[in-house]
Amino acid sequence: MTTKNAQQHKPYTNGFHTNGFPSTTSFPLDPLTTDEIEAAVHIVRKEHPDVHFNAVTLHEPPKDDLTRYMASPETEPCPHRIADIVAIGKGSKVFDGLVDLDKHKILEWEFAEGKQPLITMEDLQVVEGCARRDPKVIEQCGILGIPPEDMHKVYCDPWTIGYDDRFGSSVRLQQALMYYRPSVDDSQYTYPLDFCPIFNSDTQEIVHIDVPEVRRPLNQAPPSNYHAEAVQKAEGLREDLKPLSISQPEGVSFRVEGRTVKWQNWSVHVGFNYREGIVLSNITFNDKGNVRPVFWRLSLAEMVVPYGNPERPHHRKHAFDLGEYGGGYMTNSLSLGCDCKGAIHYMDAAFVNKAGASQTIKNAICIHEEDAGILFKHTDFRDDSCTVTRARKLIISHVFTAANYEYCVYWIFHQDGTVQLEIKLTGILNTYAMGPGESAAPWGTEVYPGVNAHNHQHLFCLRIDPNVDGPQNTVFQVDAVPSEAALGSDENYYGNAFYAKKTKLDTMSTGRSDYNATTSRTWDISNTNKLNPYSHKPVTYKLVSREVPRLLPKENSLVWKRAGFARHAVHVTKYSDDQIYPAGRHVPQTSGEPSEGIPAWIAADPDGSLDNTDIVLWHTFGLVHFPAPEDYPVMPAEPMSVLLRPRNFFTSNPCMDVPPSFSSTPSQVAAGTNGCHKMEDTVSRVV
Amino acid sequence: MTTKNAQQHKPYTNGFHTNGFPSTTSFPLDPLTTDEIEAAVHIVRKEHPDVHFNAVTLHEPPKDDLTRYMASPETEPCPHRIADIVAIGKGSKVFDGLVDLDKHKILEWEFAEGKQPLITMEDLQVVEGCARRDPKVIEQCGILGIPPEDMHKVYCDPWTIGYDDRFGSSVRLQQALMYYRPSVDDSQYTYPLDFCPIFNSDTQEIVHIDVPEVRRPLNQAPPSNYHAEAVQKAEGLREDLKPLSISQPEGVSFRVEGRTVKWQNWSVHVGFNYREGIVLSNITFNDKGNVRPVFWRLSLAEMVVPYGNPERPHHRKHAFDLGEYGGGYMTNSLSLGCDCKGAIHYMDAAFVNKAGASQTIKNAICIHEEDAGILFKHTDFRDDSCTVTRARKLIISHVFTAANYEYCVYWIFHQDGTVQLEIKLTGILNTYAMGPGESAAPWGTEVYPGVNAHNHQHLFCLRIDPNVDGPQNTVFQVDAVPSEAALGSDENYYGNAFYAKKTKLDTMSTGRSDYNATTSRTWDISNTNKLNPYSHKPVTYKLVSREVPRLLPKENSLVWKRAGFARHAVHVTKYSDDQIYPAGRHVPQTSGEPSEGIPAWIAADPDGSLDNTDIVLWHTFGLVHFPAPEDYPVMPAEPMSVLLRPRNFFTSNPCMDVPPSFSSTPSQVAAGTNGCHKMEDTVSRVV
Repeated sequence: MTTKNAQQHKPYTNGFHTNGFPSTTSFPLDPLTTDEIEAAVHIVRKEHPDVHFNAVTLHEPPKDDLTRYMASPETEPCPHRIADIVAIGKGSKVFDGLVDLDKHKILEWEFAEGKQPLITMEDLQVVEGCARRDPKVIEQCGILGIPPEDMHKVYCDPWTIGYDDRFGSSVRLQQALMYYRPSVDDSQYTYPLDFCPIFNSDTQEIVHIDVPEVRRPLNQAPPSNYHAEAVQKAEGLREDLKPLSISQPEGVSFRVEGRTVKWQNWSVHVGFNYREGIVLSNITFNDKGNVRPVFWRLSLAEMVVPYGNPERPHHRKHAFDLGEYGGGYMTNSLSLGCDCKGAIHYMDAAFVNKAGASQTIKNAICIHEEDAGILFKHTDFRDDSCTVTRARKLIISHVFTAANYEYCVYWIFHQDGTVQLEIKLTGILNTYAMGPGESAAPWGTEVYPGVNAHNHQHLFCLRIDPNVDGPQNTVFQVDAVPSEAALGSDENYYGNAFYAKKTKLDTMSTGRSDYNATTSRTWDISNTNKLNPYSHKPVTYKLVSREVPRLLPKENSLVWKRAGFARHAVHVTKYSDDQIYPAGRHVPQTSGEPSEGIPAWIAADPDGSLDNTDIVLWHTFGLVHFPAPEDYPVMPAEPMSVLLRPRNFFTSNPCMDVPPSFSSTPSQVAAGTNGCHKMEDTVSRVV
Repeated sequence: MTTKNAQQHKPYTNGFHTNGFPSTTSFPLDPLTTDEIEAAVHIVRKEHPDVHFNAVTLHEPPKDDLTRYMASPETEPCPHRIADIVAIGKGSKVFDGLVDLDKHKILEWEFAEGKQPLITMEDLQVVEGCARRDPKVIEQCGILGIPPEDMHKVYCDPWTIGYDDRFGSSVRLQQALMYYRPSVDDSQYTYPLDFCPIFNSDTQEIVHIDVPEVRRPLNQAPPSNYHAEAVQKAEGLREDLKPLSISQPEGVSFRVEGRTVKWQNWSVHVGFNYREGIVLSNITFNDKGNVRPVFWRLSLAEMVVPYGNPERPHHRKHAFDLGEYGGGYMTNSLSLGCDCKGAIHYMDAAFVNKAGASQTIKNAICIHEEDAGILFKHTDFRDDSCTVTRARKLIISHVFTAANYEYCVYWIFHQDGTVQLEIKLTGILNTYAMGPGESAAPWGTEVYPGVNAHNHQHLFCLRIDPNVDGPQNTVFQVDAVPSEAALGSDENYYGNAFYAKKTKLDTMSTGRSDYNATTSRTWDISNTNKLNPYSHKPVTYKLVSREVPRLLPKENSLVWKRAGFARHAVHVTKYSDDQIYPAGRHVPQTSGEPSEGIPAWIAADPDGSLDNTDIVLWHTFGLVHFPAPEDYPVMPAEPMSVLLRPRNFFTSNPCMDVPPSFSSTPSQVAAGTNGCHKMEDTVSRVV
């Protein structure tokens, strides 16, 4: 067993024992342990000795089976532990398998004709060395003025090829984005090379090189580096930042039982897989003693990053970072990096490697609390009687590195019942070479002399499997609109009337919606079987999302065809156990003809009803990034958020139970008493 | 001199000496001191002995004079200290005056015919008592079952009348929103009364009562309270929140010189007035030794909260909380409330009272730092060499209470050059009575039995007086759009091309823009005279705002006429010293015929050029609030943000100078050394 972070060799133990919390029995949604991974490999090897492994991960039990078991674990059978296998045999033959770890047998084993599974870190790591040794690559480097003895200064970021109609899907390919480092500690992104080798992962050969008609010489600009040593030498690091300490002397306010985190009124199971990274399941809120289901499963299910430069081969730059690389596989070990403050609870992540051994990323998941400012406040202007309560939030996060770029994913639970997904974008821009006198505009920006950063979008697909007081839910598009009645009419004499107009998304073929800021559009996920006793409106969780660009590549473009999920801000589909990946199970080298994932599911059941049934809401959000020099040599983190807010779900403010920092009543003010203070958790000093 | 917070009587000293920082000479934009206020009153009284005072505030010097002085303070004259006076004489006669505090003389004194200045806290405080004594009000209470001996249980939130065509603008009026408290500590908002007295501020009489045709009885529901004592009694306060301590043992990382705050590369002057509250001026960023101007002046200049219930007299509910009440006048003293953590620097605020004495709000402004998570991070997937740097932010904030509602205003300065305005909405919903069997839908929500909370919008107007490398700026609307070239064409063969389309806002009459989420619309505030040496694009600050609802009341409705600023997301106007208030200087009882403020300024100079000149950008943003029971009895804070981000302003990431938490280079990893750590500011404990 190897661990990614060499400093620490503590064995992976399903995250239970490494954290100081009492261990408890496991849960059917727990990720496969290292033992289970290796058991699965052993079972496969008996029948298929020659395969290597692309993925061995938990095959989540069917929702019905798990629901029955959870309802009465004493009497109902616990779903078997089943491993989902992706293996690759001779000649790049791909196999999808299911292995029952309780019965120790293979349940399914299928040859996936013409499919290419995602590129693992191991697949990526091998390309650079091959490229450096390849005569045609050495020749191209020579043309740019890099002598053969300097090939150790040539680097590449291997990407999946996306899709290239010249090569199709039968051979497993990567494209190698080439760079140069004057010295080993220099950022290579200042020195992009203008050609693009194509690598065959099966034969481990460079099979083709895309060379632009007009060549772009090696950049001669001085290095632009971001690590401390370089900055210290150049402009220096500032020394006037005084320490700001965050401490939790009594530890955290949450408990972890197995992989279930219990904090305040929240309970959530924290899963993790190689593809989506963090998976949150069985999310409930304790409403004054009544434990109410809110979401069955939440995950970031897919993303695509289309680049806007039309020049070939840049059209291939539209990474599906989850489906083509794996948000779990690319996850940082937080043993280094000190990414959070206060008392931190970490969980590790276990994967298979190519050879079939288990592999652990130490501290892959960070769970911690943060102060969140004012939770609520009110002062009576008559007498200054005042109540102010501070907020605390629970954050379950991981950070993954997709070659040049970093994605920091924060699942944030608020005391007011809100679930927030915040994503911070940082890392380094993907860059390309510039020719003499060439302008980067309009498809990119020269962010540093000779460095062209192309326009791009980051489009994320959030998979919401709701469970709002039960699995029978309905989605409504909600628009803030003026009354239809004219100004001066009896119904709207003063013209000030407005209301929330609701439109049901009722069938698979019509169950989609674009964003409309003019109506402050949101989407209600409602349980129409349960009305709020006060408002008489269905209990609801509302999707509030304001960073919702459209997919900018044109209809029927390659990206549009491959990333069907990104065509609309919202798709709603009927729940199906096997519909997890909105761009398909195996994403690399899909042509989009036909589009896999959501468009295929809709086409298969266009009239399927979405009304008051078990549904899934797929939300695509993100941003458009026109680079600027401020983003270089490393990009300041740019955050964006999606909110899931309870509306008409509770009968009152659900965080009234949080102790205030200060609270006085009119009678206390009149009596000259000072109200109640609770200041232990505040170190406040007036300077 | 009186102080709002009775606990503390330390004299107001212009905010210099109360803060532990060295006092320095004052700056022409400093607010009037208590001494200056009382001096101005004295000067006015000599000629106008019988007036009482509505406002005595700094009349900011003309920009040209101040610019000249700042350029060479030794040789150029320092602009005189001038007080801007609003006084009210016999018969509600309103006077606008200017007093030169250096020459000790009145410069201007004008009768403001038909104008009604804002309602002060003193104006508000007097209404409740009068209402309780008024026979007609007592009679109405009797009809609802409140006996005369219980009139001390009757409360009112006095609002400006807005505008009521029956009464016009010649008499100074307030409308009294009526409530009842079963006991003094009960929230009155559970017991709204259905009638609305109208109060004459001059004669201090109830001059009319609006009574609905169908009466709504006094609510019989039990109290719904939010203060600690009540919650403790009812459901209890939770006890499982462990302390989270934030401490700055060495104090803050900023200096305050006079009222100028210097933090990292930022320098900003912190002003404050009765109307806008915090005013930030002379904002500069030290770009590697070169101090560059960014903004001349930033403030929240106006807001309007239109309610969506068409039934009279609710059409009058559209508070201009700044122009009709004053965000400064309503500001909380943070001596109570402990609204922030860590090391806090407070500033007081000084105002005049009706009698002409100065009055101080202790700790009106809070200045502090917060940790802000990851500033930037990158890991090299080849060797896990990693740099991660934590962010710090500087927050200048105040909280004001508008009767039932709280607005928390945070001006946030980021190390990456971003200025963020965050506003948190909390407090209590405005509520109205419900009749038996009456439904609150569609214009409101029954948030608690018998309590109708009406739909409403919160629309804020941010005044941006830019100074992007100088006063000559130009505003462009920026839209992310696909290439015009068709899929399959030579220019866009793969259909993936997209770019930033810029449209100049070039004249007063065309200098406006609505929000368009489909194009991820932003607005560039550019200095077209200065190009970024790398990107060759104009140095720019970009307005990024995603919470931008349209004004929902119809065109030509009362709100639409009175709140001209809210008709578009962006208006750009030529700079003028006297154009500060987008809905006019005196807002109460304006009819909107003609519309004051922005529409008037545009009408006066429709062809005025906005190209490469001194301009002001007015941005209206906010949200639509359809209430829900979750918002009651007190509303969990709902945040919203506007960003001003440097784009093509710097030649690189401007926060590279921040020391990292951890940084290692490939060569350090290869050598087995661990890179540089800077962990003093982190207390991180693995549990």
